[in-house]
Amino acid sequence: MSDELRVTAAGNEISASFQTAKRLSDATLAKLETNPGSFTMLTGDRPTGRLHLGHYFGSIRERVAMQNRGVRTNIIIADYQVITDRDTTEHIGENVLNLVLDYMAAGIDPEKTMIFTHSAAPAENQLMLPFLSLVTEAELHRNPTVKSEMEASGHALTGLLLTYPVHQACDILFCKANVVPIGKDNLPHVEITRTIARRFNERYAPKNPVFPEPAAILSDAPEIPGLDGRKMSKSYGNSIMLGATAEETAKLIRKSPTDSERRITFDPVNRPQVSALLTTAGLVTGRDPKDIAEEIGESGAGALKKYVIENVNEFLAPHRERRAELAKDMDSIRDVLHDGNRRANAIAEETLDEVRTAMGMKY
Amino acid sequence: MSDELRVTAAGNEISASFQTAKRLSDATLAKLETNPGSFTMLTGDRPTGRLHLGHYFGSIRERVAMQNRGVRTNIIIADYQVITDRDTTEHIGENVLNLVLDYMAAGIDPEKTMIFTHSAAPAENQLMLPFLSLVTEAELHRNPTVKSEMEASGHALTGLLLTYPVHQACDILFCKANVVPIGKDNLPHVEITRTIARRFNERYAPKNPVFPEPAAILSDAPEIPGLDGRKMSKSYGNSIMLGATAEETAKLIRKSPTDSERRITFDPVNRPQVSALLTTAGLVTGRDPKDIAEEIGESGAGALKKYVIENVNEFLAPHRERRAELAKDMDSIRDVLHDGNRRANAIAEETLDEVRTAMGMKY
Repeated sequence: MSDELRVTAAGNEISASFQTAKRLSDATLAKLETNPGSFTMLTGDRPTGRLHLGHYFGSIRERVAMQNRGVRTNIIIADYQVITDRDTTEHIGENVLNLVLDYMAAGIDPEKTMIFTHSAAPAENQLMLPFLSLVTEAELHRNPTVKSEMEASGHALTGLLLTYPVHQACDILFCKANVVPIGKDNLPHVEITRTIARRFNERYAPKNPVFPEPAAILSDAPEIPGLDGRKMSKSYGNSIMLGATAEETAKLIRKSPTDSERRITFDPVNRPQVSALLTTAGLVTGRDPKDIAEEIGESGAGALKKYVIENVNEFLAPHRERRAELAKDMDSIRDVLHDGNRRANAIAEETLDEVRTAMGMKY
Repeated sequence: MSDELRVTAAGNEISASFQTAKRLSDATLAKLETNPGSFTMLTGDRPTGRLHLGHYFGSIRERVAMQNRGVRTNIIIADYQVITDRDTTEHIGENVLNLVLDYMAAGIDPEKTMIFTHSAAPAENQLMLPFLSLVTEAELHRNPTVKSEMEASGHALTGLLLTYPVHQACDILFCKANVVPIGKDNLPHVEITRTIARRFNERYAPKNPVFPEPAAILSDAPEIPGLDGRKMSKSYGNSIMLGATAEETAKLIRKSPTDSERRITFDPVNRPQVSALLTTAGLVTGRDPKDIAEEIGESGAGALKKYVIENVNEFLAPHRERRAELAKDMDSIRDVLHDGNRRANAIAEETLDEVRTAMGMKY
């Protein structure tokens, strides 16, 4: 078989398994619409920096919608996952508190949604031990995300990066989440979580399963490019931060690169930079980027940037206003986290107790 | 280089590093004699079965001596380590309680020694997460004990077996043990614990180290053969259990294999079975096995077995009597464990708090 054929065959396989996953995801979403109260969701973020517009449209907005629909919503701030591929936890405290600020400014209600951190949930973390016994090293190695993250980090593969899909299984299963919204890159994580849940139940609780096998909900959110048309990334300085000021945002958009063609057209392949500005404008206005391009036409990049600046800042103004209001009382932000941590530990203790009972470890 | 030369070179290397370890061990022991109160020790057992005479002379006796010397002594019953290489926790409850019975019958005083289980110490287990970030996968793989245990188990390498040296580091470091008595096979575990302690301190607490780098104390205890001259093992049925009755012990010794030579001599290489009986008799009487062989001489294997039965049962009688007395009140045995678990968690919570502070994870 030629290399090209092998690639095609592999491509088809991925695409077929993706299509299966998408069908399952659609079926889960349909059930969720009908009966949101029967669903528990877990999502989360690594506190490696601040949230930007890509996070907002990629996940935060959907979390708020889930919460408001009546799904039991849980958000983990994965502080231990910061050190999977780096040797420092610099700025972690600020990053964590800023995440809470952005969640709440975006509409996350801590009365409805549990927000907590890994480092404060010992009973959750304990699940690592029994769960690590349910997977083989070979299975850990097969995870494509682990490999690509290790390569991207330029750091030796740590024990924590190798085992982090198992830690994600702890996050998902300690609160018995049965639904996990993800991008398609994270399908293997949900798969390993399902495997762990199934094996635990089969080995230790065949008659009275302890864990659900969670379903993945694949995000429909479009990939939002950074202002320069590349992937949004802190290191590229191409992301509009939710918590930036209107002035900082204007400055960032003004200095974003465009091309030499005056007429504005939406053409992501050939004009990634101009198109990234149009995509951003489309998202915050709810308009079709093509219509915006048409409207601006010969007025050029300057006019486009002015349009983007105005509309991004208008869109983010209420978020930023709530954020500033919340930030006046950081003690209450800390209280939100402390309360979430308490609740997470209480839930984890209950689950751990069931785990001990199933394993015969109550002495 | 020929294969033989390579083996010899490797052998010399091991032997050199063993000699260094032995020197360090002797130096630690000398300090410990002078100032036992400045030492905290951690040891433990996997609750995969009952304790036998090999455990008694190999480790339990030494733990009691350490405790009575004034060293802070901690014993972990490593229940999660049972599932590193097997899919079941059958009989684990009985095994755990029988360990506590044997410890106490042998002289372990729960007022002085903390006895606890992994499954009940969430704050200890949480240390797995930061510690896993401090070792690379390659380092985990280099551990010779992991490899040999995996091969011996005939089981695929689980995530838990691969990472168990890190879990041992949690056991040792959560209570800041600075001394760990081990057999030489376990030197690599103490080495990885020292590495983890050093890296944690360097990365997160350079000015105010959180963890000690524990020293290994190499056991001087002779390897005690099973009654058939092979390694003592549950599956060989060749071990004298501390908790067996005098009758069971007599029966086991009576049916142990010997050889066709009438005259009893101590010759471990050529007469492993007869010599195993003599070694056992020597240990329980404190006599030289050669003198016992001399004494029995032409009276043969029957007389030797009679001598072993009498002396083993006499030696174990007080242990068994205390054991039977303790077993009358299993609730108080459970209380010992519950109290140990509570203390272990309290210590682990304190250590975890220092870890969070060092890592900037107090929000």
